[in-house]
Amino acid sequence: MQQIDHIGIAVKDLKASIPLFEKLLNTPCYKTEEVTGEKVVTAFFATGQTKVELLESTDPTGVIAKFIEKKGEGLHHIAFEVTDIQAEMTRLVKEGFRLLSDTPKAGADNKLVCFLHPKETNGILIEICQSGNKGE
Amino acid sequence: MQQIDHIGIAVKDLKASIPLFEKLLNTPCYKTEEVTGEKVVTAFFATGQTKVELLESTDPTGVIAKFIEKKGEGLHHIAFEVTDIQAEMTRLVKEGFRLLSDTPKAGADNKLVCFLHPKETNGILIEICQSGNKGE
Repeated sequence: MQQIDHIGIAVKDLKASIPLFEKLLNTPCYKTEEVTGEKVVTAFFATGQTKVELLESTDPTGVIAKFIEKKGEGLHHIAFEVTDIQAEMTRLVKEGFRLLSDTPKAGADNKLVCFLHPKETNGILIEICQSGNKGE
Repeated sequence: MQQIDHIGIAVKDLKASIPLFEKLLNTPCYKTEEVTGEKVVTAFFATGQTKVELLESTDPTGVIAKFIEKKGEGLHHIAFEVTDIQAEMTRLVKEGFRLLSDTPKAGADNKLVCFLHPKETNGILIEICQSGNKGE
């Protein structure tokens, strides 16, 4: 694992949460992007090496909609940048962690991403991501 | 707000969670530190500009013990580095956010810290921290 690339925050309504986080962080939202595969629209804020990513569901069956239904708005995942996602997936499986997909998927921000099962990670949803969204 | 200084994770037992996060992050825990005012022992991992901080309660009445009782282990707070914590506290109050203390408190890692009420921040516990723990 390299540095933490971003922290994902589940929100109900980006129209309300973008101005809220702009006030909180004192920096403008620099881009929004829909990730159709994940049924979300994302909004990014530059806060040093680790960005803040807000996620609003585009579908009531999506993972973010279900998360909010169960736990309310709030911290959703931590994403770690890796240089070789396939090698890191292999290492993590050897260490006893469970992956939520066998192959990397297309994520926001031109990344290849893979999530780990929170059961083995103290209840935290961990994403690993690699820059350059060539696969899937 | 400057960069994200660390992400705080509530755990039941550092003896179990430190080796778990060492395997997950592929980096050793570089220090542990007790913060008596917060009734926690903390453990830190170097993951770029934004560190990972595990928190175990030293007391069943502490905030981390209560958090785990209510929500289980998991993501607890995000801490943003600021250069002037008093000025940032004043700015945040003007913007309509609520602070959990009127003055900065002594935190881990030689910081002055102040938390914001999650009610105004999409349910997320936000810490602001300033290096150099001279006050309180």
